[in-house]
Amino acid sequence: MGKDKKLVEAITSMDEDFAQWYTDIVKKAELVEYSGIKGCMILRPAGYSIWENIQKELDARFKAVGVENVYLPMFIPESLLNKEKDHVEGFAPEVAWVTHGGTEELTERLCVRPTSETLFCDLYSRIVESYRDLPKVYNQWCSVVRWEKTTRPFLRSAEFLWQEGHTVHATAEEAEERTIQMLNVYADFCEEVLAIPMIKGRKTDKEKFAGAEATYTIEALMHDGKALQSGTSHNFGDGFAKAFDVTFTDRDNTVKYVHQTSWGLSTRIIGAIIMVHGDDSGLVLPPRIAPVQVAIIPIAQKKEGVLEAAAAVKEKLGAFRVKVDDSDKSPGWKFAEQEMRGIPLRIEIGPKDIEANQAIVCRRDNGEKTAVSLDEIDVRVGEILEKMQSDMLERARAHRDAHTYEAVTWDGFKEAADTKPGFIKAMWCGDLDCELKIKEEAGLTSRCMPFKQEKLSDRCICCGKPAKSLVYWGKAY
Amino acid sequence: MGKDKKLVEAITSMDEDFAQWYTDIVKKAELVEYSGIKGCMILRPAGYSIWENIQKELDARFKAVGVENVYLPMFIPESLLNKEKDHVEGFAPEVAWVTHGGTEELTERLCVRPTSETLFCDLYSRIVESYRDLPKVYNQWCSVVRWEKTTRPFLRSAEFLWQEGHTVHATAEEAEERTIQMLNVYADFCEEVLAIPMIKGRKTDKEKFAGAEATYTIEALMHDGKALQSGTSHNFGDGFAKAFDVTFTDRDNTVKYVHQTSWGLSTRIIGAIIMVHGDDSGLVLPPRIAPVQVAIIPIAQKKEGVLEAAAAVKEKLGAFRVKVDDSDKSPGWKFAEQEMRGIPLRIEIGPKDIEANQAIVCRRDNGEKTAVSLDEIDVRVGEILEKMQSDMLERARAHRDAHTYEAVTWDGFKEAADTKPGFIKAMWCGDLDCELKIKEEAGLTSRCMPFKQEKLSDRCICCGKPAKSLVYWGKAY
Repeated sequence: MGKDKKLVEAITSMDEDFAQWYTDIVKKAELVEYSGIKGCMILRPAGYSIWENIQKELDARFKAVGVENVYLPMFIPESLLNKEKDHVEGFAPEVAWVTHGGTEELTERLCVRPTSETLFCDLYSRIVESYRDLPKVYNQWCSVVRWEKTTRPFLRSAEFLWQEGHTVHATAEEAEERTIQMLNVYADFCEEVLAIPMIKGRKTDKEKFAGAEATYTIEALMHDGKALQSGTSHNFGDGFAKAFDVTFTDRDNTVKYVHQTSWGLSTRIIGAIIMVHGDDSGLVLPPRIAPVQVAIIPIAQKKEGVLEAAAAVKEKLGAFRVKVDDSDKSPGWKFAEQEMRGIPLRIEIGPKDIEANQAIVCRRDNGEKTAVSLDEIDVRVGEILEKMQSDMLERARAHRDAHTYEAVTWDGFKEAADTKPGFIKAMWCGDLDCELKIKEEAGLTSRCMPFKQEKLSDRCICCGKPAKSLVYWGKAY
Repeated sequence: MGKDKKLVEAITSMDEDFAQWYTDIVKKAELVEYSGIKGCMILRPAGYSIWENIQKELDARFKAVGVENVYLPMFIPESLLNKEKDHVEGFAPEVAWVTHGGTEELTERLCVRPTSETLFCDLYSRIVESYRDLPKVYNQWCSVVRWEKTTRPFLRSAEFLWQEGHTVHATAEEAEERTIQMLNVYADFCEEVLAIPMIKGRKTDKEKFAGAEATYTIEALMHDGKALQSGTSHNFGDGFAKAFDVTFTDRDNTVKYVHQTSWGLSTRIIGAIIMVHGDDSGLVLPPRIAPVQVAIIPIAQKKEGVLEAAAAVKEKLGAFRVKVDDSDKSPGWKFAEQEMRGIPLRIEIGPKDIEANQAIVCRRDNGEKTAVSLDEIDVRVGEILEKMQSDMLERARAHRDAHTYEAVTWDGFKEAADTKPGFIKAMWCGDLDCELKIKEEAGLTSRCMPFKQEKLSDRCICCGKPAKSLVYWGKAY
């Protein structure tokens, strides 16, 4: 068992060094390999297949609410990027510039898209003429580039995969409805499929997207008490439409500007899966998103009938994503590997089990072992996976709730910020100055003004002036 | 009907000007919109959804033969691209170079991937150590950039979408087997799903991929008699492995170079679908790939019960991809639109049909109309779609065979090249000089040396020296 132990010991404990624990998992679960290009990561099969499942689940939810997929160029001419002032200020410092095509210098620089509002505006200005052409609810799955100085796998990288939805509407109301609708699609997906509970809310002006009128966000709490912005949805009003001249002729025969939204979710969410559910043995994947849901590990596999019994169990589990590990490694090594990779269920089956017409089903999240009759293993595995999925959500919710604090005095707020990693709920007057002071003195940023507002006090936690809203504050990735 | 007629008249006839007919369809079927960036196209929902279906079908076939998906960076450092001599010579003249990240000049230029052999080599050199790690059968779905001077939607563009598979193996035999296996996956997919028959064969040295030992290809014949290279599969031997030092320790404990393959199919294939199946009324999509398989068009839809009957038919056709067009356009306009977009079946249902408990089913490919009882419309639609799919393949095969010629004399060859658009089969000695002379004097390139070799004569069609192989010659897109 020496080798098996080594595999497990190679991960840093999360309590000892959370950042190193994260990096260890990402590498040892073979989610990611570093590339020779600074800040660009390689998604290996174990990592990419999680993204494939996310795409599949989320895309079905998009299509159910009328989203159509498209593909736009990866390049944006500099003049197009420059058209909306706030937007270019937000993105220009972190884009990659293409200056040469083959051996020739380009007459105009092209940036590799950091996001595609400008390209979609350009498209919509070409194809939208009348109210009959509205709404357009387009989305693309693609990669984008942001030249970040500090990078971490999934959480922040120079290139990353995402989807970006861009819609145009005849009225402001319809745009606002779509903005909220897509935020809800994200939140429901994260809760139901990834077992990650989300706080839904609106960003403060300081934290909103470059060029947006309003940005909405879903915020999750990681195991270490830090927050992760997990998806955003923006309402642009008609700001971009005016900059790009995207107009339509309405029913009343007057020419109007369209109202626009965009919304995105990226591979960053895989970082959330790791940091919400993982433990010191490695990754723990929620059953609904796990590329492999069940690992069947034969015990004493050289004995007669064992591999056949394992294959028969796999056959019976046809409704699930199942792998039999019949490699020549020891069972202990295989257990450690299955745990590291976060495969939700392990089924152990050896000569004694076969004799008893049973197998041992072991849950990855809590280690619970159940002897299950081979006759009903398909039904029982389904039940255990469902239970594990809901337990994981409840556990994540309980952890978040236990790490969500309230503060009504400035001293109490600062003390909580210093000593209690988690969300801190506190009232705010709405002034940028207070937001900046909170960042400066308590080291927290505003995560969002939640849709579910509460009134903890009448006063801003920072300046004591009348409060406008409850805000979730936290340290963020 | 004036407006309806205009929509149809807006397409150039294919016999009059095939290139303009193609461009008209691409635009009027709303497959593509031009972008502000030269040579970069926008895939609109009608175009992108075809690609989504191609991805879905092909990816399932990949996974059935053990392919795993990954994602590698879109950038290649110049030094990495330079490692394999033939490869860099082939691609350097047509890559886009990134020179700046944000406001800073990069210390080393990065090219946007034109293809990713170099990146996969770099990855495999990091993760392959032992024979236990082999084979690796990875694929990625992504976009690539080749700075082409002349571009046409789908056929040749500066940026395009594709999949690129890259594999490494312990032996030369296994690499060769995989190369052929993936070519067969492509050919089967094209025949069974896209209804396009393919000639499978090997490229001459002149036409092979930069850096490959052998390139295999599938070649299709378009309606105008020109050929389209529709997918390629390359065997690299250990050439790249040596350049990138990709080695493994074999069972006998010696260190060996891996053997490598790559294979790709791109959005170019959508051009083939258009040019093989389209007609003067627009696009004709094979049922298995069509995003919408059935358009239900209510006749006199304001009359009582018509829209309800249309909805009931849709309900009954739940196994298919169906849309009801209940917009306020005239039926004639809707017919023209359905034809332009290539939707395989149109179902017309009006008050008289409802009275007779029937609907009219009209095939897009041959205009055949059938009155079908509403009681069995689900079964009949399934049958008609299947029949249409196989008829389309047979029609495409008959067209190709009728435009495939044989030549055994140089004069006969040149005459055929001048007067008979299509494939010309002729013997070849294997010398580059003859290949160049054929290009120069007959205007044809070698499409492939087909797997199904025949012996039309003992002599090279060009020089008269002993022939080595039968070659398909043609004009190519």
